[in-house]
Amino acid sequence: MTERPKTPVLDRVSLPADLKNLSDRELRQLADELRAETISAVSETGGHLGAGLGVVELTVALHAVFDTPRDKIIWDVGHQCYPHKILTGRRDRIRTLRMGGGLAGFTKRAESPFDPFGAGHSSTSISAALGFAVARDLGGDPGDAIAVIGDGAMSAGMAYEALNNAGHLGKRLIVILNDNEMSIAPPVGAMSSYLTRLYTGGPFQELKAAAKGAVGMLPEALQEGARRAKEMLKGMAVGGTLFEELGFSYIGPVDGHDMEQLLPLLRTVKARASGPVLIHTVTRKGKGYAPAENAADRGHATAKFDLVTGKQTKSKPNAPSYTSVFAGALIDEAARDDSIVGVTAAMPDGTGLKQFATRFPRRCFDVGIAEQHAVTFSAGLAAGGLKPFCTIYSTFLQRGYDQIVHDVAVQGLPVRFAIDRAGLVGQDGPTHAGAFDIAFLANLPGFVVMAAADEAELMHMVATAAAHDDGPIAFRFPRGEGVGIDLPERGEVLPLGKGRIVRQGKGVALLSFGTRLASVLEAAEALTARGIRPTVADARFAKPLDRDLILELARAHEALITIEEGAVGGFGSHVAQLLAEEGVFDSGLKYRSMVLPDRFVEHGAPLAMYEDSALNACHIEAKVLSVLGVEDLAGRRA
Amino acid sequence: MTERPKTPVLDRVSLPADLKNLSDRELRQLADELRAETISAVSETGGHLGAGLGVVELTVALHAVFDTPRDKIIWDVGHQCYPHKILTGRRDRIRTLRMGGGLAGFTKRAESPFDPFGAGHSSTSISAALGFAVARDLGGDPGDAIAVIGDGAMSAGMAYEALNNAGHLGKRLIVILNDNEMSIAPPVGAMSSYLTRLYTGGPFQELKAAAKGAVGMLPEALQEGARRAKEMLKGMAVGGTLFEELGFSYIGPVDGHDMEQLLPLLRTVKARASGPVLIHTVTRKGKGYAPAENAADRGHATAKFDLVTGKQTKSKPNAPSYTSVFAGALIDEAARDDSIVGVTAAMPDGTGLKQFATRFPRRCFDVGIAEQHAVTFSAGLAAGGLKPFCTIYSTFLQRGYDQIVHDVAVQGLPVRFAIDRAGLVGQDGPTHAGAFDIAFLANLPGFVVMAAADEAELMHMVATAAAHDDGPIAFRFPRGEGVGIDLPERGEVLPLGKGRIVRQGKGVALLSFGTRLASVLEAAEALTARGIRPTVADARFAKPLDRDLILELARAHEALITIEEGAVGGFGSHVAQLLAEEGVFDSGLKYRSMVLPDRFVEHGAPLAMYEDSALNACHIEAKVLSVLGVEDLAGRRA
Repeated sequence: MTERPKTPVLDRVSLPADLKNLSDRELRQLADELRAETISAVSETGGHLGAGLGVVELTVALHAVFDTPRDKIIWDVGHQCYPHKILTGRRDRIRTLRMGGGLAGFTKRAESPFDPFGAGHSSTSISAALGFAVARDLGGDPGDAIAVIGDGAMSAGMAYEALNNAGHLGKRLIVILNDNEMSIAPPVGAMSSYLTRLYTGGPFQELKAAAKGAVGMLPEALQEGARRAKEMLKGMAVGGTLFEELGFSYIGPVDGHDMEQLLPLLRTVKARASGPVLIHTVTRKGKGYAPAENAADRGHATAKFDLVTGKQTKSKPNAPSYTSVFAGALIDEAARDDSIVGVTAAMPDGTGLKQFATRFPRRCFDVGIAEQHAVTFSAGLAAGGLKPFCTIYSTFLQRGYDQIVHDVAVQGLPVRFAIDRAGLVGQDGPTHAGAFDIAFLANLPGFVVMAAADEAELMHMVATAAAHDDGPIAFRFPRGEGVGIDLPERGEVLPLGKGRIVRQGKGVALLSFGTRLASVLEAAEALTARGIRPTVADARFAKPLDRDLILELARAHEALITIEEGAVGGFGSHVAQLLAEEGVFDSGLKYRSMVLPDRFVEHGAPLAMYEDSALNACHIEAKVLSVLGVEDLAGRRA
Repeated sequence: MTERPKTPVLDRVSLPADLKNLSDRELRQLADELRAETISAVSETGGHLGAGLGVVELTVALHAVFDTPRDKIIWDVGHQCYPHKILTGRRDRIRTLRMGGGLAGFTKRAESPFDPFGAGHSSTSISAALGFAVARDLGGDPGDAIAVIGDGAMSAGMAYEALNNAGHLGKRLIVILNDNEMSIAPPVGAMSSYLTRLYTGGPFQELKAAAKGAVGMLPEALQEGARRAKEMLKGMAVGGTLFEELGFSYIGPVDGHDMEQLLPLLRTVKARASGPVLIHTVTRKGKGYAPAENAADRGHATAKFDLVTGKQTKSKPNAPSYTSVFAGALIDEAARDDSIVGVTAAMPDGTGLKQFATRFPRRCFDVGIAEQHAVTFSAGLAAGGLKPFCTIYSTFLQRGYDQIVHDVAVQGLPVRFAIDRAGLVGQDGPTHAGAFDIAFLANLPGFVVMAAADEAELMHMVATAAAHDDGPIAFRFPRGEGVGIDLPERGEVLPLGKGRIVRQGKGVALLSFGTRLASVLEAAEALTARGIRPTVADARFAKPLDRDLILELARAHEALITIEEGAVGGFGSHVAQLLAEEGVFDSGLKYRSMVLPDRFVEHGAPLAMYEDSALNACHIEAKVLSVLGVEDLAGRRA
């Protein structure tokens, strides 16, 4: 272990109230120590580094000026909150970040009163802060509401909806636009260009002087009316018309790493703001740690690393990731078919579309954090004769649900949905789990819904989606590595609505949908050793269901168990509906459906999460024994 | 029947191509005739009148200048499309609007090649048009893409997401902002105020002159480079900075009822636009028909009416509507509890919150067409200590799905969701059906999901939601009238997760969730006449399920049938999961689940839609007979 940094000022801070006793000079030192502590902690735990380093000064300044937790800081996305957690009573656990049982990697209400509103997805903070502000003015919790939102998050419609509503209501509300020209990937869109124009227009120095001036005049200003203060605040602005038009007072841009600007500015705003105020700070993601500053993604998310070199200690993968297999297969299909295009919502790296864009730059569209638009834009592309692959994580696809229903399904347009991160996702925890996509897609008329059992199957599903022109089609695959199976040269087009028998047995049939198949096969092996030889099938399709296969499995076996990595309402529910409608239950069938549990599964290592969810091989084995009424491993009657 | 209007010019037009032979003067007359024909048709059919009357001139001008269907006009929402339908080969069917088997009340791809992208929900048009524009430039369908979007629809985040992406891509794209200061209710939000400032700033006359001048110089302009044209277009603008900042050329405001402005302007844009252009037209909803112009909602949606007086011929209701019962109950609860607040997304009339706002103006929030924000804003209100009733139609709630999952469910915040228009909705058809809410809510951990069986039950559920502080709770109720049951003085707080036996019988149990209960009881009556006396139960809760009740029904009956007005994956699927897990199927249970069919149910009269969906009393009766193996009404073996 590397030596811990020296942090004499930070050591005197156990809660934000302790900051009130520090001079501005000590606050500056505190920021430096907080940065060192953050880097040291993340070097041990891995996690989101760059975003936190970008807001170290802002974190200190906000806690020094405002009275948290009475005043509420709402960190958008929440992945920049490590310094905030260190300052708010969680320093002793900061080296458990993202570990099972440890601190969450995002803000979380259940974890601390200093986290008034949790996050994980982007662009929610202004809406939430406005809710707090309105509640306060109606007799709810007192205190200021402060949203801190990145420029990337400003491309999302809900941020605009919130600005639009906040400008209309005119309540006191503070929005800090943390502009680092970087979300995970460089941000795209006209708003991003606009923000850049704002701060390339006016030099920081002027504002710095203005801010200093502001503090100088503060005592006097306090004697004056709100009108004067508003003018003073407005005088600081070197742009920001767009926000002014939406009813906000715009202040900025401010150097977000300069405490001499931040502290007086926040003090003035705290003393004087009467309506909605937007403070535009410019920061650098990864600030103060060279390996992060120099990385393409500014150290967005990192494994554990060596403090000196910045070198990450990643475990060596055994197999290619599902994401990379998807990207390779899509590129391969696109090389043969000019009409294939890719759409991503600000996740070119995570979805693998960056590789696609390198090969086909004119055919790849990063629309920003804008899933609603991504889906309907894809629908328009399909209506215009192209073959769009709309590539969105399961959890973020929830943002485009109405568009999936209204623009894609109702119209039967052939949009291809490539759904990455389906199922449990490990350290990112419940906000990022892809638990609901099977349920919310498989009941849409005309949709085809597939899940890949392994990375070779994923290649087949990419080919199947490319070939499917009759309506919408979706395929889901998980985070992480494949099972290491041999990959075909090219994916085959699968027959629609047909599953496959993987292993013929008798007595009990295990019908898997998706990558739990590996654990199902493991369970089947273990059961065989006990004299039970299950049939194992891979459904491939939740919609259309393979009626023949399912009814034959039900007919030929005493018990039928479905397994999926999704919430109830999905694959198993569709199977049960079929079995009921066909009268299969009338004369008895030991039917069970293994799904994700009815609670949000907390962050942790993937295996531990499956354990927690009772979806590991041992649970499947136990379920079979229980259903068949056989004694379980411990000799108890199941 | 009132006499049909005289329409000599319109009679010569069967398709838009015929407009190419008309002089500008004839086009003006055509607009007048088209208005008269629209009013005449809607007086016979009922439907959305005001929006169509507001765009009569725009409709004529667009079809006269552009080459549809090669050029694609995408009407946002689509309820303003009646004049468009009359001009595009559907005049002979215009008096079948919204009737079963007749023309849809919105644009619809399946209906005509002149409807390149259907709608129903708002704010999708710019995304779709951008999709067409990009597809065109990559070798897909040729032609211009023109989105026509109202000012109300501009409050939705997805419109902003699309502008942001379009401004970034820089493709030729035409957006017509049809500003009538009116969506259904007067629009709210800072953007709306901004638009008003734009056109109250500059008089139309100047632009009119500029537009005329533009046409005068057009031949010469055609000789010049694109740079010059762009300057010319910019010169027309009297404002519009916000759109310019987002990368659009802004033109306007234009009087959208003045063909002398519209025709030359559109011709210039068609000849000259190289990137994204936004044309800001100002129109009057209901224009040209006094009863509509003078109505509070500008004749937004109307029943059949008398042409001269404008008096609507509505059938007399037998019972209060669910919406009004909800509004009354909420007001009653709010009178006792100051912390109750209401949130609507631009539907104060439709949701009944207008009455609530009249009584409690400070406690009601219309956030605009902004469901994502509405949900997270409600989450913030709840976190701040209030009791928000987030009141959104089932179909529009799909827009806030991620916010429901991520901001409400994951955090367990006590937001109350009042879900109106759940189930089939009659003439508005599949885009407005509330088919999926049970499925997409009931699998969220910690949610309570209720459905009211009648209007008295709805009052109990409002009371139950008001009292429930432990986490999120939702209750759904349908469009239209209640069953006419006596209403209690005040709703009672229901025990969580407990259903009720409505009628004790034997042999078969019918377990209803929601308002299909009336049809279930009707079926039970009919069955009793045949010697079969079903038990009838009202589940009240899809989550938590009443385990004791359901297991007892299964134990005590040969058959158990669930009935709900929702897609598979919802209530019945949760019941099946429970029965499977408890091993009830092992020894045989005749279980069936009656749900909405796996297709989008086309618009029509409510009874016809239930018939089409096989959810009427006769279908429930037939299902029972079939399950029990009894001969059906026609003497056939079921």
